[in-house]
Amino acid sequence: MTPEEAKTLLERFRREEVSSEEVVRAFQTAPFVDLGFAKVDTHRALRKGFAEVIFGASKTPDQVVKIASELIHSTERILITRVTAEHAIALAEAFPDSSHHKIARCVTIEKAPPSKRPGQILVLAAGTSDLAVSEEAAITAEVMGNSVERLYDVGVAGLHRLLAYLPKIQSANVLIVVAGMEGALPSVVAGLVSRPVIAVPTSVGYGASFGGIAALLGMLNSCGSGVTVVNIDNGFGAGFAASQINALATT
Amino acid sequence: MTPEEAKTLLERFRREEVSSEEVVRAFQTAPFVDLGFAKVDTHRALRKGFAEVIFGASKTPDQVVKIASELIHSTERILITRVTAEHAIALAEAFPDSSHHKIARCVTIEKAPPSKRPGQILVLAAGTSDLAVSEEAAITAEVMGNSVERLYDVGVAGLHRLLAYLPKIQSANVLIVVAGMEGALPSVVAGLVSRPVIAVPTSVGYGASFGGIAALLGMLNSCGSGVTVVNIDNGFGAGFAASQINALATT
Amino acid sequence: MTPEEAKTLLERFRREEVSSEEVVRAFQTAPFVDLGFAKVDTHRALRKGFAEVIFGASKTPDQVVKIASELIHSTERILITRVTAEHAIALAEAFPDSSHHKIARCVTIEKAPPSKRPGQILVLAAGTSDLAVSEEAAITAEVMGNSVERLYDVGVAGLHRLLAYLPKIQSANVLIVVAGMEGALPSVVAGLVSRPVIAVPTSVGYGASFGGIAALLGMLNSCGSGVTVVNIDNGFGAGFAASQINALATT
Amino acid sequence: MTPEEAKTLLERFRREEVSSEEVVRAFQTAPFVDLGFAKVDTHRALRKGFAEVIFGASKTPDQVVKIASELIHSTERILITRVTAEHAIALAEAFPDSSHHKIARCVTIEKAPPSKRPGQILVLAAGTSDLAVSEEAAITAEVMGNSVERLYDVGVAGLHRLLAYLPKIQSANVLIVVAGMEGALPSVVAGLVSRPVIAVPTSVGYGASFGGIAALLGMLNSCGSGVTVVNIDNGFGAGFAASQINALATT
Amino acid sequence: MTPEEAKTLLERFRREEVSSEEVVRAFQTAPFVDLGFAKVDTHRALRKGFAEVIFGASKTPDQVVKIASELIHSTERILITRVTAEHAIALAEAFPDSSHHKIARCVTIEKAPPSKRPGQILVLAAGTSDLAVSEEAAITAEVMGNSVERLYDVGVAGLHRLLAYLPKIQSANVLIVVAGMEGALPSVVAGLVSRPVIAVPTSVGYGASFGGIAALLGMLNSCGSGVTVVNIDNGFGAGFAASQINALATT
Amino acid sequence: MTPEEAKTLLERFRREEVSSEEVVRAFQTAPFVDLGFAKVDTHRALRKGFAEVIFGASKTPDQVVKIASELIHSTERILITRVTAEHAIALAEAFPDSSHHKIARCVTIEKAPPSKRPGQILVLAAGTSDLAVSEEAAITAEVMGNSVERLYDVGVAGLHRLLAYLPKIQSANVLIVVAGMEGALPSVVAGLVSRPVIAVPTSVGYGASFGGIAALLGMLNSCGSGVTVVNIDNGFGAGFAASQINALATT
Amino acid sequence: MTPEEAKTLLERFRREEVSSEEVVRAFQTAPFVDLGFAKVDTHRALRKGFAEVIFGASKTPDQVVKIASELIHSTERILITRVTAEHAIALAEAFPDSSHHKIARCVTIEKAPPSKRPGQILVLAAGTSDLAVSEEAAITAEVMGNSVERLYDVGVAGLHRLLAYLPKIQSANVLIVVAGMEGALPSVVAGLVSRPVIAVPTSVGYGASFGGIAALLGMLNSCGSGVTVVNIDNGFGAGFAASQINALATT
Amino acid sequence: MTPEEAKTLLERFRREEVSSEEVVRAFQTAPFVDLGFAKVDTHRALRKGFAEVIFGASKTPDQVVKIASELIHSTERILITRVTAEHAIALAEAFPDSSHHKIARCVTIEKAPPSKRPGQILVLAAGTSDLAVSEEAAITAEVMGNSVERLYDVGVAGLHRLLAYLPKIQSANVLIVVAGMEGALPSVVAGLVSRPVIAVPTSVGYGASFGGIAALLGMLNSCGSGVTVVNIDNGFGAGFAASQINALATT
Repeated sequence: MTPEEAKTLLERFRREEVSSEEVVRAFQTAPFVDLGFAKVDTHRALRKGFAEVIFGASKTPDQVVKIASELIHSTERILITRVTAEHAIALAEAFPDSSHHKIARCVTIEKAPPSKRPGQILVLAAGTSDLAVSEEAAITAEVMGNSVERLYDVGVAGLHRLLAYLPKIQSANVLIVVAGMEGALPSVVAGLVSRPVIAVPTSVGYGASFGGIAALLGMLNSCGSGVTVVNIDNGFGAGFAASQINALATT
Repeated sequence: MTPEEAKTLLERFRREEVSSEEVVRAFQTAPFVDLGFAKVDTHRALRKGFAEVIFGASKTPDQVVKIASELIHSTERILITRVTAEHAIALAEAFPDSSHHKIARCVTIEKAPPSKRPGQILVLAAGTSDLAVSEEAAITAEVMGNSVERLYDVGVAGLHRLLAYLPKIQSANVLIVVAGMEGALPSVVAGLVSRPVIAVPTSVGYGASFGGIAALLGMLNSCGSGVTVVNIDNGFGAGFAASQINALATT
Repeated sequence: MTPEEAKTLLERFRREEVSSEEVVRAFQTAPFVDLGFAKVDTHRALRKGFAEVIFGASKTPDQVVKIASELIHSTERILITRVTAEHAIALAEAFPDSSHHKIARCVTIEKAPPSKRPGQILVLAAGTSDLAVSEEAAITAEVMGNSVERLYDVGVAGLHRLLAYLPKIQSANVLIVVAGMEGALPSVVAGLVSRPVIAVPTSVGYGASFGGIAALLGMLNSCGSGVTVVNIDNGFGAGFAASQINALATT
Repeated sequence: MTPEEAKTLLERFRREEVSSEEVVRAFQTAPFVDLGFAKVDTHRALRKGFAEVIFGASKTPDQVVKIASELIHSTERILITRVTAEHAIALAEAFPDSSHHKIARCVTIEKAPPSKRPGQILVLAAGTSDLAVSEEAAITAEVMGNSVERLYDVGVAGLHRLLAYLPKIQSANVLIVVAGMEGALPSVVAGLVSRPVIAVPTSVGYGASFGGIAALLGMLNSCGSGVTVVNIDNGFGAGFAASQINALATT
Repeated sequence: MTPEEAKTLLERFRREEVSSEEVVRAFQTAPFVDLGFAKVDTHRALRKGFAEVIFGASKTPDQVVKIASELIHSTERILITRVTAEHAIALAEAFPDSSHHKIARCVTIEKAPPSKRPGQILVLAAGTSDLAVSEEAAITAEVMGNSVERLYDVGVAGLHRLLAYLPKIQSANVLIVVAGMEGALPSVVAGLVSRPVIAVPTSVGYGASFGGIAALLGMLNSCGSGVTVVNIDNGFGAGFAASQINALATT
Repeated sequence: MTPEEAKTLLERFRREEVSSEEVVRAFQTAPFVDLGFAKVDTHRALRKGFAEVIFGASKTPDQVVKIASELIHSTERILITRVTAEHAIALAEAFPDSSHHKIARCVTIEKAPPSKRPGQILVLAAGTSDLAVSEEAAITAEVMGNSVERLYDVGVAGLHRLLAYLPKIQSANVLIVVAGMEGALPSVVAGLVSRPVIAVPTSVGYGASFGGIAALLGMLNSCGSGVTVVNIDNGFGAGFAASQINALATT
Repeated sequence: MTPEEAKTLLERFRREEVSSEEVVRAFQTAPFVDLGFAKVDTHRALRKGFAEVIFGASKTPDQVVKIASELIHSTERILITRVTAEHAIALAEAFPDSSHHKIARCVTIEKAPPSKRPGQILVLAAGTSDLAVSEEAAITAEVMGNSVERLYDVGVAGLHRLLAYLPKIQSANVLIVVAGMEGALPSVVAGLVSRPVIAVPTSVGYGASFGGIAALLGMLNSCGSGVTVVNIDNGFGAGFAASQINALATT
Repeated sequence: MTPEEAKTLLERFRREEVSSEEVVRAFQTAPFVDLGFAKVDTHRALRKGFAEVIFGASKTPDQVVKIASELIHSTERILITRVTAEHAIALAEAFPDSSHHKIARCVTIEKAPPSKRPGQILVLAAGTSDLAVSEEAAITAEVMGNSVERLYDVGVAGLHRLLAYLPKIQSANVLIVVAGMEGALPSVVAGLVSRPVIAVPTSVGYGASFGGIAALLGMLNSCGSGVTVVNIDNGFGAGFAASQINALATT
């Protein structure tokens, strides 16, 4: 039931063509149109930036192209995560202006470059092995309209590398800190800044790293106040949350 | 917004005291009144039998009495689970006709005995240590209007005890099978019947029973088809689900 | 020892051709014939619908065809689960009228369509990645004579999609709810209905989903009463249990 | 080395009382004074609101009073978390104007009420058993100068309770969502809003809830984008992070 | 149905007082009497030595005394494991000649000392903290008629203590090896003997011993051939199995 | 130091060519020759049957052939476990009379058939998927000189299949019970016999079977007395231990 | 067999009172006397400093006093770890000059102060809650003759506290780094020094710290080279290993 | 800011070209130049021997060659661990004098053989399957200038093999003990020596070895004092730590 249909119904009620019981019932049996309206509004607002995210991992190249082809009508930019080379080739054929971010394992399709929000999101990575996840976070935040800086290979075993960038670290609005193995970097970073820190454990490591559990537990138990955590290897989730936070800063 | 309020709003609209936009917005902003109506109906229907269940474990005796005193106005029978002696005493003072089922750690308050459904729910327990959980399941099913039979101490290490009751086992509508340690009883029972088997792992055991994990995993991996599982020690959940299933049988 | 053989033995006893000791011993040494009788009856009854289920995963195409060829003499319909393309091809050659349900990874062989029970089993899936498990549940329930409805991609992150189908959800006899990741859908669905809900965790997810453990734990701890759970990815088990429950409703 | 000391050293250098090598060495051997300066500035800024947090759990009442007595000289407000009755009594004696937030297990000492930031932090709790953790989050956010709204007992098993508050939910700047058992509430809430959602798993539950692991895993695997997670029962951490985020919104 | 009752039924059949159908049905409906016969025989045989074991942990002193009072009519000796001081006092009152084995946490009641089997069971313990479990194993084996030797505090960190007893170790029929912490002793012992080694992990340890998991895993992965394992702290189970094995040696 | 060398040394001492201190020191510094003697004796005794077991899994075909070629000089029979087709081919070329047990994944090389011990080892398997592990156990026991019977596909979900073989089950000296999934079969079997039961969990299953952990925990927590357990899939270990036990029975 | 007995035996051999076979056999059957000699020597050497360590946790005050009373005859200093107040009181009565280290939960009894080794062992602790474990490590190292420095409350969330002590950190021979929660401190410290770092996880924390598992995993996965780890809360083990390492430095 | 730049700044200050505030600020904003100096010194010192270690596992052959080509200018020897055949070929082309240690999965490039430290590091391995990890440890220690002895296949199931090498074992400065399965060897070795023992669990095993967890837990819970542990399969870490310890012994 659209607003127009609702108004028509109310007019018919005013003209006594339908009873008040019928009107009440109509709204009762279709409350989700009304809810839908509110949600669609919200939904639409939300979509400006992210609703178009396609998780490529469990889909065929054909499926991904098909979904993207449908989304492209109603959105300015599309993000497809966890793409393989096959996904990227199929998307490049269908969308000649798509960009394949190989390290991030993402493809983005943008009708026009997004206007950037003023504040900055900083993505820190402990080691070079954390790059894929870090870039997924960075690309996600960028396609949603944020300025993103990278600071990679600044793990805690060589503190001077990290401390050399203190001003950059302390001036970011939001910090995404990506680390595998023992996952200690977010604790150290959180001790240096007063801004929100989103920690991303990665599955980098072997033996008792248990595919990222060690890093995840380290981050959940961080002695650094203000650290929140996302799932192992979930660069997208971190970029998304950072964008939501940074959006607050600019409104 | 009650139906009466809704009708009043519509009358005001008909009298042109409010615009159609205002009416649409009113329904939009309060759609869950309408949804609520539908849900309350369902809800009320559901409540005839179970909505009144109070989980005593995390509440003080006073809180439990207070909630029960409120519920008693709108329901025929109340079930309070995981009660301590203190809960029971407080409830007995407030509700002289309440029944304390000590082994089951439950109190029931019934204005009148429920009319029993025709079919039978059978609760089997592997060992005597599983009684508290088994009785919680049995009392739950009984207070919801089911005939319940018990068959306790029929663990798989002494098959003849179980097999001696084959006719009773094979004639039940639903079977709740409670076991700790290795949790093998549901598999054996499910091999003997064509009815739904609800398995309840208990925290009975020591060492590598890990507080019921061994039994839980055993039941989830049951080679007996038709076995579904509830949480460790969740006698209430099993009794509730069994009642829902048995209710299907009688309608 | 068949009933006929038993009667012959008794006649020989009456004719004093065998002693009472010999008769007692015969029944003692072959008690499972007698038990067998009862069990075979039950067994045969049970088989009408499910005993023919072949778990393809650990068998070669030849083995599967061989077992199916034997079963086809005594049953109206056969279900083979977890089949590969090789299984399906071998079965199609041996049984030209077999059906390969690709998404469900099942093959069914039916001499005649089953007569459907009146009530309805509804299979809900949280995401498109849960389809294989969902379809395994649906096909299992269908081949056992149930009417099955599907409602896919109604995860809790977009409630309006789910709520839009409330009437369908509330009219089903049994609900199978399939979800990976955090496995929250069964809790929400159980809050909307008074019918049994069978939750199926899937191994969909990554990182801390631990191959379905997160979803499994979520479902076992569901705050929605009446939820029972099967093993991770066990669509067959859910379909089987749902059929057992729905069978109660129609007798 | 304070800034004054540094200037004195430089003056002595200008007066040629010390060599340039000695000055360089002085700054080299005490670089953390310089770093300290920067950090102290940051630190001081950070302290306006949070640095005074005392974790009461592992300290005696005397220790807590002693630390608070020292902190009170340099700060406007003090937060002590995880206090027992003994802590509270000792603090009340030492600080007559301290407030004991019993449910939150916190004591706050405020010289003057903080000026509130404009935006709102909303704390949602799935069940009444999640109150202690929820209140710890709420009190933490309040003492740091945020307006906080509570919305408790809105678990997913009764969606209408949650949906009835949609406007309030959708107008908050940051949402803290507290839940035990299966921890599904953050996923549902995140699907309704475009703001950051901080999920707090609680140790509420039994059996396979494993002291909050089930809820934690559910939240880490949330299908709702933008959800970040803190440690089990870490209401303080959630309140702290929410305050950091909300602080961005107002600058 | 006893054999006598069976014969009576057959006589009635021969006298044509009952039909053959009735006889067949009687055996069908009570097949477990016949099975029971065989099992009762076995059962009775088995009971000579162990069936009387009462697990005290989950029973009240009254319950234990009651069960023991019933068992005493049909058995020569009773073993009650995991007793508290209360159990022991109650048993001493009821059975003045009962023996309380404090370290083993067992009570034994023996009408007469059992005749000992010729071979020897050797119980080795790694440390003094493993004594309770070791003694439970030893007492269990003794009350079942075995000669038992103890060899305690011979952990692998001081090999010379163990090796000094090589002749004793190599002459035992069965070896029970009890160890906590890393549980390495069974591997070393199994390398020295050609006899069955039953390994018993204990919950002795702290930190990453995880209540005996470390020892359990160590024993399951033993590089020493011929090692089998029982549950953590399950001294009774080890003594029981050792007795079953030693019984083979003497027949 | 060989015995001959020792005697030579002693003769030299008697001839006063070496001092008593030197002799004592020689024995001190080479005590393991002496110990070695004793151990070699034991060792040699032990080897008659098992010491030649080669674990093929982590070795190349060449390595396996090389080790076997060395062992063949000093032993009557060789067992190589966990062999691939490549191992088997290489062994068949080197040892034309070797036997490849494909299902058991073993190769045996026997100069002459072993003389069989009188008693019988029975290997039971719950399902057809447990065959590889079961056969590894059976072949191991056979090559060590035991008569072995197999009883496969007798899982607890169809008790009549198991109970039909009760006499065979009750007459075995030792029982090896192999099961995956919930691992319930050993409990049931142990309830039927008075002989040692060795339980072997297999990695058969999916989802919450966790590669055999569910079966392992089920067996460790078995309510059937006298059950001991070996590592997941460790058919060899079970066959070895069973042979050790059966060897006791025949001496 | 003591060396004197050995020489006597050899003399008897020279006098031809015993045969060479008898002598060889005597050494064979008692090789561990000889081995024992060597081991006793080693053992005695080892004992100078550590063999007297008594683990108080699982012993009564009487037992501890009794063992200490025996040890005092053969050693200069005794260390008793994990003592309660009861242990300390009993020890103080028996050994008036014993010292009770309350925070470390240790008692030491020293006849004379040990001569200190030249190098220094540095014990760092992340938080004040790690003090008990840290002091256990420090006291252990001290009683074994090492100079020990403490550096507490230098967790990674406030790097400047740690960095302010860089010279002290970089001049230690061995570093023991104690931390709970995420256990990140050893990684940071190892990045600053070229000396061995022994990491000690503590059970400090809550929720997903899982009693020290998070810290343990963090340390095992440390990106800092040269970090080795001991069990959770095992301050004694760290102090002991540090002493062994430092002993190398001074010889 | 280099020291020269610092002096220039100070000269400008003396010439009153800059204010003292500016100088203080300059040192404040670049404190890590100063810190950096100190750290670079340390860093350079540390690098003599190990800083050049390249973890090959997560890098392409090109990347590894590129990094090595850069490192070769500033170091005498390079270690690349976890190399594949492809890495080795690429490195051999670029560095004709590189050595590929196949079993250790390492490549070393040494301009000149290192001068060896006097003491000895002994690497013990329990089984032949532990060789890769053991050799990684040995090669690491060797390339860092240590004399390394190997002692392989001395697992605890055949103690005589180990004890035969007692003198060698007791004379080493540091012992690296590598073991999979139950990981018992370090406990036994630690009982025989007074030197530091570094235990390395390997992922060798199957079933309940859980990829090395069993060995890891065994080692963490070692009853042998002085045992410290590194991550599963972390031969490099053990070799590195052993070298750090041995370096202490020689200075």
